[in-house]
Amino acid sequence: MSLLVVGSVAFDSVETPFGKAEEAIGGSAMFFSTSASYFTDVGLVAVIGDDFPEAELDFLASRGVDLQGLHRQQGKTFRWEGKYGFDLNEAITLDTQLNVFGDFHPDLPPDYRDVDAVFLANIDPDLQLEVLEQVRDPKFVACDTMNFWIEGKRDALEMVLSKVDMAVINESEARQLAGEANMVKAARGIQAMGPRHVVIKRGEYGALCFADDEISFAPAYPLESVFDPTGAGDTFAGGLIGYLCRQGSFEPEDLRKATVIGCVMASFCVEDFSLESIRELDYDVIKRRFHKFKELVHFGPLEDLNE
Amino acid sequence: MSLLVVGSVAFDSVETPFGKAEEAIGGSAMFFSTSASYFTDVGLVAVIGDDFPEAELDFLASRGVDLQGLHRQQGKTFRWEGKYGFDLNEAITLDTQLNVFGDFHPDLPPDYRDVDAVFLANIDPDLQLEVLEQVRDPKFVACDTMNFWIEGKRDALEMVLSKVDMAVINESEARQLAGEANMVKAARGIQAMGPRHVVIKRGEYGALCFADDEISFAPAYPLESVFDPTGAGDTFAGGLIGYLCRQGSFEPEDLRKATVIGCVMASFCVEDFSLESIRELDYDVIKRRFHKFKELVHFGPLEDLNE
Repeated sequence: MSLLVVGSVAFDSVETPFGKAEEAIGGSAMFFSTSASYFTDVGLVAVIGDDFPEAELDFLASRGVDLQGLHRQQGKTFRWEGKYGFDLNEAITLDTQLNVFGDFHPDLPPDYRDVDAVFLANIDPDLQLEVLEQVRDPKFVACDTMNFWIEGKRDALEMVLSKVDMAVINESEARQLAGEANMVKAARGIQAMGPRHVVIKRGEYGALCFADDEISFAPAYPLESVFDPTGAGDTFAGGLIGYLCRQGSFEPEDLRKATVIGCVMASFCVEDFSLESIRELDYDVIKRRFHKFKELVHFGPLEDLNE
Repeated sequence: MSLLVVGSVAFDSVETPFGKAEEAIGGSAMFFSTSASYFTDVGLVAVIGDDFPEAELDFLASRGVDLQGLHRQQGKTFRWEGKYGFDLNEAITLDTQLNVFGDFHPDLPPDYRDVDAVFLANIDPDLQLEVLEQVRDPKFVACDTMNFWIEGKRDALEMVLSKVDMAVINESEARQLAGEANMVKAARGIQAMGPRHVVIKRGEYGALCFADDEISFAPAYPLESVFDPTGAGDTFAGGLIGYLCRQGSFEPEDLRKATVIGCVMASFCVEDFSLESIRELDYDVIKRRFHKFKELVHFGPLEDLNE
């Protein structure tokens, strides 16, 4: 199935306790499309400035990502600067420069209007709605969002949620969106706003998947070398939705496995700065990591306790 | 196998966003022994004051807990008062009154010296060492600890760790003890201090088990009705170690399943105040919850991605 992502392409400057990256390639659409490209055909809608390196476009093309919807505009590319402390769970934003992203309005190439699936990365919900107005009848639409839009654009966000099949959202933002501390109730509350499925991203604790009324859980892999969590959430979503598109099915049983695939892809992402560790993955490497996840949560059946 | 627990028996006054309990029965040894009693023979060493209700001793006896080591002393029982916010992950201690627990020195009945397994609940590491001096040659010893002892009694705690087979410890305290933010490295660091196995308690995120060089993970069950997390960690340890004693084996494969049993028991504990929800569990109810855990992390094998 064809999959369209609309989001940001950026330069990220990141400092973690383990090192520093200056103006490394980043942005939600960049992580998402790279990750999803291992599983399905991806088209990317975003905007870049005239400073964005041609070599990165060649990289995306080499991964089969369709770039018809990637507009180059005069000016500078979106820049984000952030910093992580030792627990790596939360980024502190030091600087954001929207640059060409400031006037971004998604303009879908005609070929994209009949796309099978859409991922609305974490951008202004008004822009997410603009995307939905331009696609004809996608089989599956998923969205992400963040505290900034929950607080500032609640109405537009609720409109988006009423139109999507799945929300992929951070744990704390799920609580905020639903106004509910209990995670099960928060997820049910978000499902009541529209999406059939809600996937909760929990950083180093993995992801909870509420698919219709089934609940499943995928752990994050306990790695000795977590280096930089930037992009892990979008890499997760790319693996999750890319794999669903590969299977051509969006039922609870598919979501269970897809959530693990998302965690597998995110586990590679955090092992290096920027996209470095997900640029060239072998299917055997992905499969081996998947098996490690299976081992991690494997335990035998329970004996009869009545003796 | 016979299992001995040394820890506290207390009155807990707890406030959560869902209600309030005044002077409810609590204490590490109380939660641990109740939980472990579903799986093995438990002896309890602790101290209570003259205000501790006889009915609770009858309850323990009805669960088969041996009370030879439970000393009643003149004075008041240990009291703890705490409060939880909406996320329920961390208790704020409002008041601690040691009372008779202040001069507690574990004095093991002669019968207990040949016990098979020992759990040193979270008490002063000097007292934990006193217990170890009194047992002859247990097959398995596990301990818990907390920030207070890591900061204030580091040497004694390291001595304890050098003598135990397993540490069962909270995530943040594992990081503090090992001086290492990365959880895998922290666990490996604690293993280097002595214990073969390290089990990391992660509250609502479950537990990570480092058994020799194997890693496994048990999620916490996503419940709609988390009421009071007090005692969940000791209830977890009781299920974990009680089940290991039932199996009579302490190898990595046993630990995997035992960690899940620990999470199963903790998932009941949090559904009500105090011990209420673990007083009378049916083996069928335990088994059903265990199956829910299995379902939660179940996902099928991965297809060939090379198409």
